[in-house]
This record gives sequence, C-alpha cells and structure tokens, in this order.
Amino acid sequence: MHYSPLFWPIQLKGSTIYILDETALPHKLTYFKAVNYRQACKAIKDMKTRAVGQVILVFCIFLQLVRQHKSKKDLMPVLAKVAREINATRPTLHFEFLTDMVLGWAKSQTPLEKSILGFLEGLKHARTKQAQEASKLFADGDVVLTHCNVSGLLPLMAEFAKGHGKFLRFFVTETRPYLQGSRLTAWELLKGGYDVTIIADNMVAQVMSEGKISKVIVGADHLAQNGDCANKIGTFQIALLARHFNIPFYVLCPPASGASSGRQISIEIRPDKELLWYGGLALAPKGAKGYYPAFDITPAELITKHIHLELAR
Amino acid sequence: MHYSPLFWPIQLKGSTIYILDETALPHKLTYFKAVNYRQACKAIKDMKTRAVGQVILVFCIFLQLVRQHKSKKDLMPVLAKVAREINATRPTLHFEFLTDMVLGWAKSQTPLEKSILGFLEGLKHARTKQAQEASKLFADGDVVLTHCNVSGLLPLMAEFAKGHGKFLRFFVTETRPYLQGSRLTAWELLKGGYDVTIIADNMVAQVMSEGKISKVIVGADHLAQNGDCANKIGTFQIALLARHFNIPFYVLCPPASGASSGRQISIEIRPDKELLWYGGLALAPKGAKGYYPAFDITPAELITKHIHLELAR
Repeated sequence: MHYSPLFWPIQLKGSTIYILDETALPHKLTYFKAVNYRQACKAIKDMKTRAVGQVILVFCIFLQLVRQHKSKKDLMPVLAKVAREINATRPTLHFEFLTDMVLGWAKSQTPLEKSILGFLEGLKHARTKQAQEASKLFADGDVVLTHCNVSGLLPLMAEFAKGHGKFLRFFVTETRPYLQGSRLTAWELLKGGYDVTIIADNMVAQVMSEGKISKVIVGADHLAQNGDCANKIGTFQIALLARHFNIPFYVLCPPASGASSGRQISIEIRPDKELLWYGGLALAPKGAKGYYPAFDITPAELITKHIHLELAR
Repeated sequence: MHYSPLFWPIQLKGSTIYILDETALPHKLTYFKAVNYRQACKAIKDMKTRAVGQVILVFCIFLQLVRQHKSKKDLMPVLAKVAREINATRPTLHFEFLTDMVLGWAKSQTPLEKSILGFLEGLKHARTKQAQEASKLFADGDVVLTHCNVSGLLPLMAEFAKGHGKFLRFFVTETRPYLQGSRLTAWELLKGGYDVTIIADNMVAQVMSEGKISKVIVGADHLAQNGDCANKIGTFQIALLARHFNIPFYVLCPPASGASSGRQISIEIRPDKELLWYGGLALAPKGAKGYYPAFDITPAELITKHIHLELAR
C-alpha cells in the first residue's frame, strides 16, 4: 500500500519529535521539531497538527519524556503534570482518554516505552484495516464527497477499492477557514493519482442536486457512546443535506469516549481572526467580528454507517 | 434615510460611467471609469459589479450610447448590437428582460434618455420601498442571517426597523469564493452601525442549532414565474437548513422573468481559478481542479415569503 504523509504525520527520532506542519501544506512538506512537551503542546494549539496527528503526538510526547528522564522513580509526577497540560490544549478531541491510557500503563508492570510503541503499532495496523473496511462500502464509479481531512485514510481506501477493480472519484469541500479540504485532502488524493474536484462549502446542496455525488464519507474527532460524532465544522450540515438527497453518509470513527451523547462533547470556539484573515490578507472590514465554532455534532441518526477503528486490546 | 454606496453603485456623469469596484471593497472605496460599452461589459464579466449594480449599469450603458451618438437616426442598430453583447456577458441574471425594455422604449415616441432616467428614478424608489416592506417582517431583537449581498437593502431595512423601535442584529455567511458576505454585507452593516457577526458558509447548521438565528433573508438574481429564485451559490442549502430548523426564509426579489420555473434558469459556471486562488495566494495544490457553479435555485416551496420589487409601470 502507499501511505500519504498525512497517514502518520508524527515521527520520534531519539528524543526529538518531528511534526508534519499541516499549515504549510500543500506548498511545502516540512516537519516542525519539538524538543520538549511544551513545544509539542503549542503545535496542537496552533493546529500545526490535527486529528490523528494529535493522537500520535500525545503518545510521542510521553515517549519523549521517558527518553529524557533516565531516572524512572521521579517520572510519574512529571507524566501526570504533562497529561494535564495536554488535556488543556483543545477541548473537542478527547485527550483525557489518551493520557489516562498512558498513566495507566505507567502504573503497570510493562515498561512504558514498550506499551506506547506497541499501541502505536496497533494503531497503524487498525487504521489500515479501517480504510480497507471502508472501501467495501463503495462500488465502481462511485463519486465520493468528503469534508476536511481524514489523515491519509481516503487515498488508502481508494487504493483498496482499486485493488478490487472499483475506481472512485472524489469531491472535496474546501473546508473554511483552515482549508483542510483543498490543502490536505485534495493534495493527498492528487498525489495518489485519484480524480478530485474541489468545491466551496456552500456548493454541497447544488452538487448533490445535480446528481454528482453518490456517497459521503467523513472522519470524526470524537465519538460518543450513542453514535453521535463531533467532527470539523460543516460536517453536520453536510449530513443534513445528504439525508435530504438520500445519499449514504459514512463516518470513519475513533474509539468511543465516555460521553453518553454529543451533548456532552464540548465544542471548541477558536479566535475569529482565523476566519477573518488568510495568509496575511484581511478578508473582512476592520472592526468586523466573527464566530468560529471549530466543530459540530452530527447526530447518530444521520449516519448511515459508522466505520470503527478496531484497536486490539 | 442613509444609503449604502452599494445601494446605487453606478453613476453616469456626462458620458462616463463610474462603477463602484466591488472587488476592491472593503479595503478601498473606488470607482472604475467605463468610457464605452465594451469596458462596461467587461466590468460585468469580471464581477466588478453585480446584482443591482448590473441592472443599473445596463441602463447606464444605453444612456451613454444616447449621449455619445448625437445623430438619432443610426442609433437603433447600435442599440440592438450592444443589447446582444450585454445579454452575452453572464447567463443567470436575466439581462434580456432589461435590454428588451430599452429596445422597446427606443421604438416609442418618448425620448430614450427620458425613459431610462424615469425608470432608474422609479427603481430607486421601489428599492427603498422594498426595504421598508421587508422591515415589517421582523421583530425587535431578531437575529437575521443573510448570505452574499443584497446591494444596500439590509442596512436600509434595519434603519426602517429601528424607526419602529425594532433593533436587529445580523449574522452573515462569508460567501465563498468571492466573499461578498464578509467584504460587502458586513462592511455596509458595520458602516450603518449595526451588530454583525461573520461566519463561514459551513457554520450555518451549527449556528441555527444553537438557536442563534431567528430569521433568514437573502436577495435573488432571477425570479421565475412559479416563485423559484436563482441566487448566489449557497442560498439553496441555507433554505434547506432553515426549513429543517423551522426558521422563516425570506427573499428580496427582482421582477419575475418569463422563465416558468427554476429549471429554465441557466446556472453560470465560472472559472475554477476563482475558487482555487485568493488575492494572489494559491489555496489548493498545483494541478487541482475545482467546480464553481456561481448560483443555485431555491425552489418556491422553501421560501416563506417573497418580498417583491414593485416597479411603477
């Protein structure tokens, strides 16, 4: 299989973390070096990495700490402190779920580094499997609409489909304000050799009404127990439109958190300057204000099928 | 009343047409000078002016021709030729409706200049009246979502409402790719002293689900006989979402064309570079393609009320 750089955007070499700078894509493929957990947490806050990149990064932060602290006996309070800092970076992804996992391992008999490396290996395998499962939902000739970016899963899914003689084409919403659709998804699909067409976020109903879309697939940052999903802002309205036009709506999910429903998931509100400026250009008049909820909740009843990430336990 | 510069963006002084350059707003308020009909038609194609600006410009092009041709006897074929050029600029606004009107006047006994000036005076009056009628649909404290730009009608509507002790606040979608919402509507509402919040086009369902929006009002570029409206891309999905959330959806309409329904209205497809570039910045990877339908059709059944432009005949 061919993996997009976005499939696994974080690398740990020695005790330096290399973070694929998603803000520089598609123009530059560069990695930001984090030599300590503070720099790594800042990269999360600044959205240099996102989605699965954040997940991998959390584990790499702990690996880095283990490698930086030769003495094991004073490590536990440091891990706990860093866990709190990670949990406070952004509210919508369920960081506590990840940091609790690491703190649990730290208390167990297995060396922490081994537990983390084992988990990451399992995650890589499970993500590949998830793309393969997703590919089974599509037929040859399907035109697939997606939103934001699912960190390398879509080109992989298209490759699995191709292996079974099913050729998929894609439409991708640009996904304002951060343009993950144009900058990341269109880029990785093009790189993989797939046919992809970019539309603005306000063109979804029009392309659906023209019969151009056969299926929708998106990712999710947070899955609640009842199947509600938090994902990048704009997902919810695409799900409503898909329902209106009778188009199947699939979600590639992370493991469920303890939240019983979407109502328990906090929606991050980001600074409005991220909406009102782009690449140094003012998009709005001086003094204008914006509102930027970074995620929304798609209720389970709008989701045709959840494609789960099956982590070996 | 206070009029936004967008309410009447075209001026004819002598035989020079001054066209408010809407592509330069909100950063610069400048007028582009068209000394002949070719330059004026190009300003339409390049979207330097749009919506009612196009309508006024069509009449000013003919006024300019009248003033440039001292001899009346060879004017008719020139008018017919220019009418054809105007009709070919952009497909969605019903230019033929306007040019046929002028050609009809040219054949009548009234001097053409007088007919056109009389019509424009009536249009100004009718637009003011339309804003006043619209203001009656709102209550004090209403939060009004709008999309794209309705050429000065919204600040005027808010002023009429204020005159009756009704204070309105606004949310406006930025309206990609041309950002008429952020650049024009937010600008003219701020200038008028109104509270306005910009959101991305993909945040509509979210702000509606948060209960932030009480009513929606938009303009239209083309009204069919059955009440279907063509308006800026994105209008249709806002109408679908408003219906889902039970929010009234109002449309400020132009006079109906001869089209029996929205199916007879051509949707302009614009060059994808307008979607893939902004202000000289590439928003997408090299080699990516986009799809940019500039308008969509909102079916009459999604429209709570049409607010018509009542031209005196």
